[in-house]
Amino acid sequence: MAKDFTKRADNYSEWYNTLVERADLAENSAVRGCMVIKPYGYAIWEKMQAALDKMFKATGHQNAYFPLFIPKSYFEKEAEHVEGFAKECAVVTHHRLKPKKNGEAGLEPDPDAKLEEELIVRPTSETIIWDTYRGWIQSWRDLPVLCNQWANVVRWEMRTRMFLRTAEFLWQEGHTAHATSEEAVEETKKMLNVYAYFAEQFMAIPVIKGVKSPNERFAGALDTYCIEAMMQDGKALQAGTSHFLGQNFAKAFDVKFVSKENKLEYVWATSWGVSTRLMGALIMTHSDDNGLVLPPALAPLQVVIIPIYKTDVERDKVNQTAENIKSTLEAKGISVRYDNREDYRSGWKFNEYEFKGVPVRVTIGARDLEKGLVELARRDNLTKETIEVTNASDHIVKLLDDIQKNLYGKALAFRNSHTFKVDTWRDFTEQIEKGGFLLCHWDGTSETEEKIKEETKATIRCIPFDATEEEGKCIYSGKPSSRRVIFARAY
Amino acid sequence: MAKDFTKRADNYSEWYNTLVERADLAENSAVRGCMVIKPYGYAIWEKMQAALDKMFKATGHQNAYFPLFIPKSYFEKEAEHVEGFAKECAVVTHHRLKPKKNGEAGLEPDPDAKLEEELIVRPTSETIIWDTYRGWIQSWRDLPVLCNQWANVVRWEMRTRMFLRTAEFLWQEGHTAHATSEEAVEETKKMLNVYAYFAEQFMAIPVIKGVKSPNERFAGALDTYCIEAMMQDGKALQAGTSHFLGQNFAKAFDVKFVSKENKLEYVWATSWGVSTRLMGALIMTHSDDNGLVLPPALAPLQVVIIPIYKTDVERDKVNQTAENIKSTLEAKGISVRYDNREDYRSGWKFNEYEFKGVPVRVTIGARDLEKGLVELARRDNLTKETIEVTNASDHIVKLLDDIQKNLYGKALAFRNSHTFKVDTWRDFTEQIEKGGFLLCHWDGTSETEEKIKEETKATIRCIPFDATEEEGKCIYSGKPSSRRVIFARAY
Repeated sequence: MAKDFTKRADNYSEWYNTLVERADLAENSAVRGCMVIKPYGYAIWEKMQAALDKMFKATGHQNAYFPLFIPKSYFEKEAEHVEGFAKECAVVTHHRLKPKKNGEAGLEPDPDAKLEEELIVRPTSETIIWDTYRGWIQSWRDLPVLCNQWANVVRWEMRTRMFLRTAEFLWQEGHTAHATSEEAVEETKKMLNVYAYFAEQFMAIPVIKGVKSPNERFAGALDTYCIEAMMQDGKALQAGTSHFLGQNFAKAFDVKFVSKENKLEYVWATSWGVSTRLMGALIMTHSDDNGLVLPPALAPLQVVIIPIYKTDVERDKVNQTAENIKSTLEAKGISVRYDNREDYRSGWKFNEYEFKGVPVRVTIGARDLEKGLVELARRDNLTKETIEVTNASDHIVKLLDDIQKNLYGKALAFRNSHTFKVDTWRDFTEQIEKGGFLLCHWDGTSETEEKIKEETKATIRCIPFDATEEEGKCIYSGKPSSRRVIFARAY
Repeated sequence: MAKDFTKRADNYSEWYNTLVERADLAENSAVRGCMVIKPYGYAIWEKMQAALDKMFKATGHQNAYFPLFIPKSYFEKEAEHVEGFAKECAVVTHHRLKPKKNGEAGLEPDPDAKLEEELIVRPTSETIIWDTYRGWIQSWRDLPVLCNQWANVVRWEMRTRMFLRTAEFLWQEGHTAHATSEEAVEETKKMLNVYAYFAEQFMAIPVIKGVKSPNERFAGALDTYCIEAMMQDGKALQAGTSHFLGQNFAKAFDVKFVSKENKLEYVWATSWGVSTRLMGALIMTHSDDNGLVLPPALAPLQVVIIPIYKTDVERDKVNQTAENIKSTLEAKGISVRYDNREDYRSGWKFNEYEFKGVPVRVTIGARDLEKGLVELARRDNLTKETIEVTNASDHIVKLLDDIQKNLYGKALAFRNSHTFKVDTWRDFTEQIEKGGFLLCHWDGTSETEEKIKEETKATIRCIPFDATEEEGKCIYSGKPSSRRVIFARAY
């Protein structure tokens, strides 16, 4: 058990912040709202990137890179987009520093180097990309354009938390251009499914797929699809979004094409993204009061082997067994560390790898080894078992698979036991304090949604794709409703 | 032969710019000095990244991510660094836009959201990283720290050219911390060797390893090592640098550690980087008047297969052969496209892939196929051969290897034939106009170097590591010198 480590039940928020720092995932930087992603945290992000990038390419997308800076006027071209994104942002006004006047020490922006038009550090890239697509698209033959970019973006958030909400964050943003509305909608759904598959198969996080209410829609989109996950405090976390943008950006940036029927038409658009926020979701879904818990599919280190011996003869035997297991596992593509450093005690090592969430620990003790045995410890449920050394590698492979499935199952069971059908306003206000997903009828109006948010801080996370048709009355207004939506407090 | 395509001999600079755009590598964006890297260009960069990243990890480095923004005051902490980097840069002064006053249309920076301290978009990250390392390093046990980051950086260049010099560019920057000067110097050399290996083995570009003269040193470094390549116009291009930073940044940011001898000491530093500039080097080293030429090791598409047939029966036979060759090659890890689109003529396809530098083209003609033959065309030397279809895959594998070696050999021969020992100022001024590397004696002073630069635009590219000791007189001042250095005009 990690010392001085806040329990989830005592202070969930402090537990999270401490975990992020102590597991060497990230730390706050000297720059307001910007974090440093430390090597161990970044290694997890790299595994996420690799898996997602492979899926993007398998669905026909190519990577490209667009400028960091966007001219201010670009945001003014799409009316809703400007409302959503050109507010809290980093504004570049000068392109040079010069020594201060009057012999004072230090530098200041050079008034002679004031930009004619301010540049905005991209909060998202629809505008600059659609300005570029105008040059790429003339005919139906040029469509679809299926681009993705891995990039940093900046949104000047007032209250920040590592991974969950930071001024600068890393993400990918896909931007596609299509000849028809149908094809664009299909793309929007396809990419949401890619995200859902990634969340469930790699992150071991069950997600609910659905559509956002107009209030929660991306600024400039006709529809925003999302995947929503539940954290261990019962709050929701939006883990990915995919937007059907209609012809809004094509119209704002004058992107037309000659169709097969020889007509000049505006292009249809989608955009979709996931960010380092997923790191927050990963941590908050699986980790416990002993530290980080990682699904094997995303663990930078999947297996750690720790030796215990006294004499040189014992050491040689343990080393040999460890190296055998290591090379056998590595040949199967599993990442293994044999930690035989002698200046760290085994107890220290146990704590260290437990806190960092390494899925499987193999302890090779000289005494066990005499009996042909080694000990395996699972990080997910903290159980141990002693097995024959001859079976070790095969057993570990199965164990990793088990752990991956168990984490998903546990998270799903948690979500199910914290999802409630709620039919009265009184139950709603009581339950929302305890957390969880509240399946409720809603009258479909923004007014009601806003009032519920004001009174309870709960928002509509999504209207699930698989919601069944069902007559009911709005939880708040009592007006008729034909399906339940998910309300929750959210990150 | 590509139509309307400028020849190198006619206008090298226009040839380059046209090539970059027409081969779909990159284009200028609406934002001054910033480029859009198009999917085909980005795919080459991704291959570069993958190869380099693997080598960084194999030499013990881990990736991390540090903030995009650096507080202005950080630059003021290292005296030489501020001179070099805090001049032409993007300065963020506000964190919000608001509607203009007086009912005017548009947005303006909100005066209420002026930052207390301006933020600089990183031109390089030594300052923010060493500010972070202070928290990471206390004892010799914490050393070495071996981090790399893949990131975008911004330097407000006045005259920009795609890939070669852009306001925003992509790069990697390694930043390491060590307990001793010796270890830091060893790291500096090790990473220069990694760059040289990458340039020669992957990019097929011969490079000269050496040390920069003080004038050309990185601002804040004690020594800058570099690899220098020669372009086809005889100009030099610095393809990578590795800096020994001494204790300068540790002192500026107060990063100390307790040594094994229990003394409090400043940490020793290195930094090293390569950027999307390498794309410029790749293009200018190998490409020709027919377009792009790519070494197979970095070509996104290594082999293209083009069918020629008339009847349906012919088509089926050609398809079958093409698919066979494709799957055999792909099983060997080679990237292949079978372009059987019927709405493009074969002639158009030949031009397209030639211009885009695909190393090997396989033409499967129905008539040849009846005789059991297919045609192979090499992009590097534009030769063709007809071979038996049964040998095709094995032959292509060898061909790719041949092409990789041939491109390197060609570039090396070019460099050798454009490298001159020059011993008089008159020869120097004549030869420098024709281009090439000039091996000359130099008196070791900055004054001489600056005068030569003023008069001829030539700079000292490096003092080669393998320069032999040799008595001589400075080409300019006539003062004694003990080894030759390389002068050239440079990108």
